Amino acid sequence: MRQLIVDLGERSYPIYIGEGLLEQAAQLFGKHAIPVKSPIMIVTDESIAPLYLGKLQSVLEGAGYTVHSFSVPSGETSKSLEMYERVMTAAIQAGLDRHSSIIALGGGVTGDLAGFVAATYMRGIRFIQCPTTILAHDSSVGGKVAVNHKLAKNMIGAFHQPEMVIYDTLTLKTLPMREVRSGLSEVIKHGLIWDRGFVDWCREHAEQLLHLDSEALAYALYEGCKVKSYVVSQDERESGLRAILNLGHTIGHALEAVAGYNELVHGEAIAIGMVGSALLSQRFGYESEIHRITKQLFERFGLPVQIPAHMETDAILEAMMHDKKFKEGQMVFVIPVHIGKVEIRSDVKVEWVREVIEQLKGKERA
Amino acid sequence: MRQLIVDLGERSYPIYIGEGLLEQAAQLFGKHAIPVKSPIMIVTDESIAPLYLGKLQSVLEGAGYTVHSFSVPSGETSKSLEMYERVMTAAIQAGLDRHSSIIALGGGVTGDLAGFVAATYMRGIRFIQCPTTILAHDSSVGGKVAVNHKLAKNMIGAFHQPEMVIYDTLTLKTLPMREVRSGLSEVIKHGLIWDRGFVDWCREHAEQLLHLDSEALAYALYEGCKVKSYVVSQDERESGLRAILNLGHTIGHALEAVAGYNELVHGEAIAIGMVGSALLSQRFGYESEIHRITKQLFERFGLPVQIPAHMETDAILEAMMHDKKFKEGQMVFVIPVHIGKVEIRSDVKVEWVREVIEQLKGKERA
Repeated sequence: MRQLIVDLGERSYPIYIGEGLLEQAAQLFGKHAIPVKSPIMIVTDESIAPLYLGKLQSVLEGAGYTVHSFSVPSGETSKSLEMYERVMTAAIQAGLDRHSSIIALGGGVTGDLAGFVAATYMRGIRFIQCPTTILAHDSSVGGKVAVNHKLAKNMIGAFHQPEMVIYDTLTLKTLPMREVRSGLSEVIKHGLIWDRGFVDWCREHAEQLLHLDSEALAYALYEGCKVKSYVVSQDERESGLRAILNLGHTIGHALEAVAGYNELVHGEAIAIGMVGSALLSQRFGYESEIHRITKQLFERFGLPVQIPAHMETDAILEAMMHDKKFKEGQMVFVIPVHIGKVEIRSDVKVEWVREVIEQLKGKERA
Repeated sequence: MRQLIVDLGERSYPIYIGEGLLEQAAQLFGKHAIPVKSPIMIVTDESIAPLYLGKLQSVLEGAGYTVHSFSVPSGETSKSLEMYERVMTAAIQAGLDRHSSIIALGGGVTGDLAGFVAATYMRGIRFIQCPTTILAHDSSVGGKVAVNHKLAKNMIGAFHQPEMVIYDTLTLKTLPMREVRSGLSEVIKHGLIWDRGFVDWCREHAEQLLHLDSEALAYALYEGCKVKSYVVSQDERESGLRAILNLGHTIGHALEAVAGYNELVHGEAIAIGMVGSALLSQRFGYESEIHRITKQLFERFGLPVQIPAHMETDAILEAMMHDKKFKEGQMVFVIPVHIGKVEIRSDVKVEWVREVIEQLKGKERA
């Protein structure tokens, strides 16, 4: 078992990563002095529940816990105020008290929803994350929890750090291949912004990672969490440095907004976005090698590196302007300086972005 | 203008108390570097809006702020998830960003609702309180914000400290007399738990307070906030000491739950509760003087000191058992040791409570 401490002073917490960790949940709960007297509640989704809920529940019940559970429909639509109220109602009916814990068993949506319930139930109770996707390594660090408002995503939320994260790599074996690639895209991003050595390691271990080799996965998740953890511990409330985590996300979010249903998943959109940022970096005079390495890396992982040709450049630009990351009308981009280091630039010209989108659509070669 | 700092480390904030302070809101906003570039939103209620919203809005607009407002119906029913969502929608439509502020102009309900919106809009933005009731001096210290769930009061909330509190004593002049007395009951409570000198001062200045003399009110609010502020700064997350603030509340909440509509307001219920706690203190061998002084004090302020005879003793006891302040089935009470000092007792016998309720109903003399 690997262990990483997210260092946030009195809100510090460990991430445990390893094969079969759900089986050891009771010991970890004991180690963290989660009281047996107060009922606990597992929040999960309908595709994860049949696979792992029974196991986790019985392990915890075996240790004397009174375990309730609530299962939400799979997918982003569950990150709603309506579902939030339903989980709250279930928590009250289950008799959760100030000493209770809410456990998120699932991916990012489940973690965000359950985390926001934990952040606000009786003004905040313990929150424990059991991620079942690779992508969720990202949301398991940083304490950002939220639901969507009809008018805007992640608009309603809080910062609420978990008590611990239990990352059982066995649960990743059932992920669809497309989700595996998408999750690895976010892992690689953490290398690109901070650690060239880890980028090299990812390239060399692409086969093992795509085949879900437990050792390789555990290492990659550990390193990905480590980078994010370091950045977050420097900037818990997102006032500066933390913005570097958005590498590829300005273009990526716009692509997600414009793409048709299921055309691009998150990791795919940000892979294209990171290739775009590498192209933008050339306008600042940085090495063209950045673009070449970034593009080859994502190709190696079977991730897209081009914008689907039918997407309208104007629509993508328009979507970017509406992104809440836009600071008072300025185009703010995370730009790679070299592989493993980035900077925040607010002097990116709109024409450059337009040209880069065209390049990414394959209309001009980089 | 009086100024009190609520000392919570990096979350410390000032409470400004004085006559006509709403007129000076722009200067105070400037002093706190509230940015003019980001829109702000005043949340108020339908009885306060016609009295003070226009003034506050024009003062702030005069200083260059873009001011939006949202008015909710008066009364506890506005502390709902439904109203929370409506205020959120208004905030999004008004274009509030991470640098925006939400201003609560009103009593405790408005403060709790607007504060919870501020705590969770984009994971937390600035919150400024402008209380317009005496009772709200209590909720203006401590950062507890919440809405009600259909199944339980204050179940959904957060700790979110304001940027500042602007307490204009002029706004208290329009309070109905019953609300004045009710608010003063909480003020006196702060004396009873912490400061005998302040209790004596209240008794000597009952006339001035009841006549809303600005100087006397400002002093009483200052002292009340000071006691609460000291207690909260010792125990921000409510893990121990803060419980002493519940003097009179165990019986008081039960009376509110059992009373018919408008039969007892909060300050009246806790006044009776505090007299009850004084009676309970005799069971622990404390001076009967505590009961005499407490009772006379509330009588002087025209507050009730007896339980209406028609209320069923069993119903009151039952309501107490359901109070979330009950720690795992134990009767926990704040008991006066002498005037100005209390202790938490978990060894209060149910029979004693029953007897005290009977005494409060006037069936036996104390």
